[in-house]
Amino acid sequence: MKNTFGQNTTVTIFGESHGHAIGAVIDGLIPGLKVDHDFISYQLSRRRPSLQTDTARSEPDNFKIISGIFNGKTTGTPLCIIIPNENVRSEDYNYGIARPSHADYTAHVKYNGFEDYRGGGHFSGRITAAIVAVGGIIIPALKEMGITVGTHILKCGGVCDRDFLDIKSDIDKLSVSSFPVLEQKCGEEMCEKIIIAKKQLDSIGGITETAVYGIPAGYGEPMFDSVESILSHAIFSIGGIKGVEFGLGFGFADKSGSAANDPMRYENGNFVTTTNNNGGINGGITNGMPIIFRCAVKPTPSIAKEQQTIDFIKKENADISVRGRHDPAIIRRICPVIDSITAITVFDILQSKSDLNFYK
Amino acid sequence: MKNTFGQNTTVTIFGESHGHAIGAVIDGLIPGLKVDHDFISYQLSRRRPSLQTDTARSEPDNFKIISGIFNGKTTGTPLCIIIPNENVRSEDYNYGIARPSHADYTAHVKYNGFEDYRGGGHFSGRITAAIVAVGGIIIPALKEMGITVGTHILKCGGVCDRDFLDIKSDIDKLSVSSFPVLEQKCGEEMCEKIIIAKKQLDSIGGITETAVYGIPAGYGEPMFDSVESILSHAIFSIGGIKGVEFGLGFGFADKSGSAANDPMRYENGNFVTTTNNNGGINGGITNGMPIIFRCAVKPTPSIAKEQQTIDFIKKENADISVRGRHDPAIIRRICPVIDSITAITVFDILQSKSDLNFYK
Amino acid sequence: MKNTFGQNTTVTIFGESHGHAIGAVIDGLIPGLKVDHDFISYQLSRRRPSLQTDTARSEPDNFKIISGIFNGKTTGTPLCIIIPNENVRSEDYNYGIARPSHADYTAHVKYNGFEDYRGGGHFSGRITAAIVAVGGIIIPALKEMGITVGTHILKCGGVCDRDFLDIKSDIDKLSVSSFPVLEQKCGEEMCEKIIIAKKQLDSIGGITETAVYGIPAGYGEPMFDSVESILSHAIFSIGGIKGVEFGLGFGFADKSGSAANDPMRYENGNFVTTTNNNGGINGGITNGMPIIFRCAVKPTPSIAKEQQTIDFIKKENADISVRGRHDPAIIRRICPVIDSITAITVFDILQSKSDLNFYK
Amino acid sequence: MKNTFGQNTTVTIFGESHGHAIGAVIDGLIPGLKVDHDFISYQLSRRRPSLQTDTARSEPDNFKIISGIFNGKTTGTPLCIIIPNENVRSEDYNYGIARPSHADYTAHVKYNGFEDYRGGGHFSGRITAAIVAVGGIIIPALKEMGITVGTHILKCGGVCDRDFLDIKSDIDKLSVSSFPVLEQKCGEEMCEKIIIAKKQLDSIGGITETAVYGIPAGYGEPMFDSVESILSHAIFSIGGIKGVEFGLGFGFADKSGSAANDPMRYENGNFVTTTNNNGGINGGITNGMPIIFRCAVKPTPSIAKEQQTIDFIKKENADISVRGRHDPAIIRRICPVIDSITAITVFDILQSKSDLNFYK
Repeated sequence: MKNTFGQNTTVTIFGESHGHAIGAVIDGLIPGLKVDHDFISYQLSRRRPSLQTDTARSEPDNFKIISGIFNGKTTGTPLCIIIPNENVRSEDYNYGIARPSHADYTAHVKYNGFEDYRGGGHFSGRITAAIVAVGGIIIPALKEMGITVGTHILKCGGVCDRDFLDIKSDIDKLSVSSFPVLEQKCGEEMCEKIIIAKKQLDSIGGITETAVYGIPAGYGEPMFDSVESILSHAIFSIGGIKGVEFGLGFGFADKSGSAANDPMRYENGNFVTTTNNNGGINGGITNGMPIIFRCAVKPTPSIAKEQQTIDFIKKENADISVRGRHDPAIIRRICPVIDSITAITVFDILQSKSDLNFYK
Repeated sequence: MKNTFGQNTTVTIFGESHGHAIGAVIDGLIPGLKVDHDFISYQLSRRRPSLQTDTARSEPDNFKIISGIFNGKTTGTPLCIIIPNENVRSEDYNYGIARPSHADYTAHVKYNGFEDYRGGGHFSGRITAAIVAVGGIIIPALKEMGITVGTHILKCGGVCDRDFLDIKSDIDKLSVSSFPVLEQKCGEEMCEKIIIAKKQLDSIGGITETAVYGIPAGYGEPMFDSVESILSHAIFSIGGIKGVEFGLGFGFADKSGSAANDPMRYENGNFVTTTNNNGGINGGITNGMPIIFRCAVKPTPSIAKEQQTIDFIKKENADISVRGRHDPAIIRRICPVIDSITAITVFDILQSKSDLNFYK
Repeated sequence: MKNTFGQNTTVTIFGESHGHAIGAVIDGLIPGLKVDHDFISYQLSRRRPSLQTDTARSEPDNFKIISGIFNGKTTGTPLCIIIPNENVRSEDYNYGIARPSHADYTAHVKYNGFEDYRGGGHFSGRITAAIVAVGGIIIPALKEMGITVGTHILKCGGVCDRDFLDIKSDIDKLSVSSFPVLEQKCGEEMCEKIIIAKKQLDSIGGITETAVYGIPAGYGEPMFDSVESILSHAIFSIGGIKGVEFGLGFGFADKSGSAANDPMRYENGNFVTTTNNNGGINGGITNGMPIIFRCAVKPTPSIAKEQQTIDFIKKENADISVRGRHDPAIIRRICPVIDSITAITVFDILQSKSDLNFYK
Repeated sequence: MKNTFGQNTTVTIFGESHGHAIGAVIDGLIPGLKVDHDFISYQLSRRRPSLQTDTARSEPDNFKIISGIFNGKTTGTPLCIIIPNENVRSEDYNYGIARPSHADYTAHVKYNGFEDYRGGGHFSGRITAAIVAVGGIIIPALKEMGITVGTHILKCGGVCDRDFLDIKSDIDKLSVSSFPVLEQKCGEEMCEKIIIAKKQLDSIGGITETAVYGIPAGYGEPMFDSVESILSHAIFSIGGIKGVEFGLGFGFADKSGSAANDPMRYENGNFVTTTNNNGGINGGITNGMPIIFRCAVKPTPSIAKEQQTIDFIKKENADISVRGRHDPAIIRRICPVIDSITAITVFDILQSKSDLNFYK
């Protein structure tokens, strides 16, 4: 399905970094959802470059919803949201000189040389603004159902944030944070590391951690539509993410079953597990505990330092120092993108359990 | 799509641990592929319990192909392969006592109490035999195109195997190995650790590493059908896998861009990268280098040690010591499953590039 | 999706006329549906050749459900049903001599000569037994919701049955009829016409009419998932059907809007239309009136009369008199197939309206 | 998939009659296709109201392509095309008074009262402009492969056009015709009938006939993706179409097999059938002859004559005379829509045959 995702609520993404606009079409939305333009704007601002740690290109993200909305609410028919590209530098691009670890070369092979290569084209991080805009519509809908999503930077530049503790309030805190960490001080240290990388004409990566609070037990499917399958599918669509782990994830490798298994209990009549090593998912299906996962984010490939590369037009070796406006670390800006794609996915998973209406 | 996967070649899986049979339907297969029953049997034997480190339940896996084959070759119409369950113990199950970290409770909630709970039902690792059988048909087809897949145990019980070196020959070696490691000695040490866990009525997990050799550049899609998205979607459908990382994966968190980016070169007229930190994928699209990924495998949840759990029928707390026949570690047996699901996915990705025929 | 259909409840069909077995996998079934083996058998008997008007090949249709069922009820995981081919004549086939208006030639081109050509292979009407078996599971589930489906032969051999009058009781009558007409006498005349065709070594076609009773208003989608789109998609998958029309269908061409529009009324507080020219569907969405559609069924292409054809192996012209066991008219046997595929489709459409749960 | 169609090249449609804009996203397009803005404009003009027989609302259809195009050619990434709604009358609508045979009531039920009801909203014929715009991109791509599509009005107001004779040149003729008939004189008579209906405050329907020339044998799938299934699915998404028949269609009911079967021949080394009663499709797969199908188009439901209806807000009976700007017959304007949706579908079917590359 390439640029479309979802089974019940489907999201289609379009646009290129230096084209007219980027945007998204959302189909299958529940009719009657309130669309809060201010919240969408706020979410876009969370992703927008604004700090010293970010790229100098800043788009105003003046989005416009051109269908699927009536009297401020969703109609249930396809909602199209457009975000114009306004701050596009018409600089010259050296087409053929591939930026290492970027999609320049692979896009060239895939699209036979017809790709819009300017600023990374359809592969630019710019496209994620469309996902955040969609998230701006879905996140409030989830909230009405008591479900919240939050992502913090767990690690960046060797600095580690604390783990989630009280997930509900931690998520609330993150939703209004300008730099998404749970310990303010860690965030300041991370920023310092990012600025150092920038001065060194280099970049750094990191690890994010996401929690979904309030999702009931019994959602998801066995086999190919396990919650892990669907969530990882969605998350790996974000450029720069190279690893996804649920619960203990790779930490399971060093555990025995007796240490890793989550003891199950009834507490005040409610089902809980006393640990959450499985990250809220058993056999691909939610167990009612928060969903927890972490993402590995690679360092921004575009760096000013000189690197070895190729010219795929001249078919010869070349050197490159990437100019233009780039982030020394995308990890802050990727957090609202992960929140959004997670919300979109969870919303879709919730809709899949239609069958039980029949036996009421 | 629940139990169906793939866009061009689609695989549908069915069956329960203690039902009549498990099996799969493969649709969209290229007509004229040779079906090698001996190879399918061999692959199934690689997954079958056989060592001291495995469960005592051993199924003969007497599979039968009941459609889609004619004169020993695929017809192109749906191929249905059935594997009867023959070694089923008609023991009593205590329905209601959930095994911690297993799907017993979540399946109960999802299916409203109608699930076949015997032996884990549809959530049993038994189902993966169907995936391996399908792999037994797809792997030779890939081989004809020069593409091979291999998985080794990178880590188990604290013991680490060596990394891939000469990927092509390492894969060949793994394809005939009885215990899939690259260093024989590491495998022996891992087995010792597994046997120790077994004696302690416990279990252990580990990490696998997979390589796909020979896949050309330009396959995959941007956004939602990135190679990472599709592969992780498929791989997370295997029970017990809780993390997937490509190339450096979570290791990217501690690297600078200048250290992490893969330098690009032409060598003897061929494109290469001198490192492969991106695991053969840039912007979601293959770059022609081998695809490399690792999976986190959790310890088998079924252990004989006593654990805290619930009785979801009586709605009260309970204790459990899981009896029955279980693996103290599934990591050896999961390797051919990962090989198979990877082969199925790669085969499907290759078929998606239909468009360029028009302009030749 | 080739041999898979449905969005929520998906059906995958497999098998060839002279292979081991045909069958189906149903995924996404509501858990807890009673599976009535006797009813499935009865439905299969309605499709089975039994009258003088039918082919001499008669399969016992000894089906077996090998997964997805537990204690006589659906589990919600994939249900696989197998129907062995038992009455297969191992006669010689002249591969290369195409039967006119059959799939012999097109299958040869599509599958590059690897198709199982025996008895029409995957293109044989035999495959429809799998659809009827699936219908045998779905039809009772619909009935629990107050929805029934019935098909009668509206026209065959120039003889016309009466139209539906009291749809609910007409459907009930058809569900136990041995020859599905509303006027017994018409059926007798049709049979005579079929037997005449048989004696002339020829075949005849006809028109069927189907009603779905009890489906509420508000189901279906605009645009590409209109009820007409989904139903026609499903119905045209049955070999031999070459036309589908809803409500007045082609009769609309000769009507003015004022005569064709269905007047809308409240009667005793319930919404009705006083005519049903739109066949229960407006804008692709059910309006609460019965769904009505008709199918054009072409004469069986396999006839004993000599016809001009080609030998696509020798690449030369040829003559053919189709031997073997064939129906002079498939119209009686196609009725339970249409009932079944309609039930499957309606069941799936009903499941698509999941969204409104959120706001209750 | 609701408002998305296609497996390889997918089209997503959005917009409402009186919203900001309508439009489409095309994904999976072959990179490097020339996009001819003049041709898109020309196709839109063929659908635009312009004759005395059409509605008075005329949109300029000033479309804009905002992504997926670079240097005048497709990039292969999603192409989004927007058509603003400029000629919208801000008249008052009587929400609740359902127009008979229109989607007003069914949309109300489906969307719980949140639908944009102005001018039919998402159910308006206005939306078909987006399909025509997409066709404006796909039709030239098919032409490069030697495939052309044409639709004529076969019947309207009791007047019949002649059948297709020389299909290739008939299609060429239709592609530049202002009123799509094969006999000019028939068109004039049809126009008279339409104008009479208009004067009578009424409307009329008709039958269209479409031919696809140049499609090779071997495309399509058995069962659920038969060419008839896929084409009818697409075509029934156009509002007002209530019947689709291929080849002889409902005419098969009155034929014997010996008269209906298409004799097969080699002529000058090429395969042909001497008749084309099957409309170019056998067993769901193209046989190399032109695809021929007919559509039943119902009379425009919106008429000025008084009709019985309901007020679904007040829940009482009502009368209605539909004011506003409506077509007394949509059959002329529907022809380029059918051409476009047919081209889109055929293009997608052609891309599905990816598999045979492996064995070259």
